Amino acid sequence: MALYIKSVENLINEFKKLPGIGPKSAKRIVFFLLKLPRKDILKLSQSMVEMKDKVKFCSQCYGLSEEDVCYICRDGSRDRKKICIVEEASDVAIIEKTGEYRGLYHVLGGLLSPIENIGPDEIRVPKLLEQVKANEVEEVIVALNPTVEGESTAGYLKKILIPLGIKVTRLASGIPVGGDLEYADEVTIGKAISERREL
Amino acid sequence: MALYIKSVENLINEFKKLPGIGPKSAKRIVFFLLKLPRKDILKLSQSMVEMKDKVKFCSQCYGLSEEDVCYICRDGSRDRKKICIVEEASDVAIIEKTGEYRGLYHVLGGLLSPIENIGPDEIRVPKLLEQVKANEVEEVIVALNPTVEGESTAGYLKKILIPLGIKVTRLASGIPVGGDLEYADEVTIGKAISERREL
Repeated sequence: MALYIKSVENLINEFKKLPGIGPKSAKRIVFFLLKLPRKDILKLSQSMVEMKDKVKFCSQCYGLSEEDVCYICRDGSRDRKKICIVEEASDVAIIEKTGEYRGLYHVLGGLLSPIENIGPDEIRVPKLLEQVKANEVEEVIVALNPTVEGESTAGYLKKILIPLGIKVTRLASGIPVGGDLEYADEVTIGKAISERREL
Repeated sequence: MALYIKSVENLINEFKKLPGIGPKSAKRIVFFLLKLPRKDILKLSQSMVEMKDKVKFCSQCYGLSEEDVCYICRDGSRDRKKICIVEEASDVAIIEKTGEYRGLYHVLGGLLSPIENIGPDEIRVPKLLEQVKANEVEEVIVALNPTVEGESTAGYLKKILIPLGIKVTRLASGIPVGGDLEYADEVTIGKAISERREL
C-alpha cells in the first residue's frame, strides 16, 4: 500500500518532476493545496494549460510571444541595427529589466556543443544571419553566460560576423556591483583587471 | 509593461503562492513547463483538480480518505483500543511508515492557542471523546510535535483523558537514531537524560 491515498500520491509524484522540488517539498505543496478552496486550485491548473496553449515562440527572435511576432520585434521604436544574442527565452526578460538596451534579440535556444551534436543549425545561426542582413545590423551584443560553452559559442559567432563588417561586443566581466573583492574568484578579478576602465 | 508576457507572468504568480517557492523557483518551474509537451502539463493540471475533488477527510479520524471513512478506520484488524493523536492529516502517513503502530488515529487539525482563539472545539476534542467512548479506548498516544503549543495541547488532553481512566502516553524525546551528541541541542540532551532507559 502506498504511503498516501492514490490521488494524493499521484499529485506528489507529478510535483516531484518539477525542477528544484524534492519529495518533501512536493508533499508540502500537495498538503497546502488540499487546504485551498477548489477555485484557487482550478485557477492554478487553468493558468498552466492556458500558458501552454497561448505561448508561442516569436518567429523572428524566438523569444516568448502570444502572437506570431513578439512585442519587441513589433516595436517600431527599437533600434533594429542592434541584436542581442541570448541563450534562453527567459534571458530576454533579464536584459529588458535593466532598461539599458533598446535593440532587438535573438534567442539561440542552446549553445554549441560538439559532444552533444549541437552545431550552428541547432542554435538558429541561419536565422540570425537572415535577420542581420534584413535589418542591416551594425552591432551584435553577445549576452551568453561566461562559461566554457558560452565562450566558445561567442567565439564562433565572432568568427562568422566580423567578416560581414558587424561589430561584435559582449557583456563586460568583472566584480558585481555591490560585490566584495574578498569573495570574488580569481578569474573574475583577473578579468576585472584586464578589462579595467579609465575613471 | 510586465516583465514577461501575460500568461507566463500569471503562472509565475500562481506558483509563487505555493509554500517554499520564491520568485526565482517559480520562474524556473514555468520555463520548465514551457518546454514540456502539452500532455504532461495536462496531466499535472488534472491531477491537481482530481485530488481536490476526490480527497475528503475521514468522518471518524479526519485523516485523508477518498471514501467517507478512511482505510485505517475501516480496517478490522487494527487495534481499536488505541488512538494516536496527530496534528495534521499528513502526520498519519509519517507514523504509518514506521510500521510500529496498529491502532487508530485522530487528527486534531491544529493545536490549542488562546491567542489565535483556537480552543478544544476547534481541534475536534468532542469528536475524540466520542471515539474514545465508542471504542472503549484504553490508550491515547499523543504524537504532537515537541513545541510549546504541542506540549500545552498534550497537557490539556492528559487532563481530560486521565479522569476517564485512559492511559495517556506520548512519543519519547531524545537523541535521533544515528544522531550525534555533539549536534543535539541541550534541551534534547536533557530530555534524553531524564528519560533514560535501562539497557
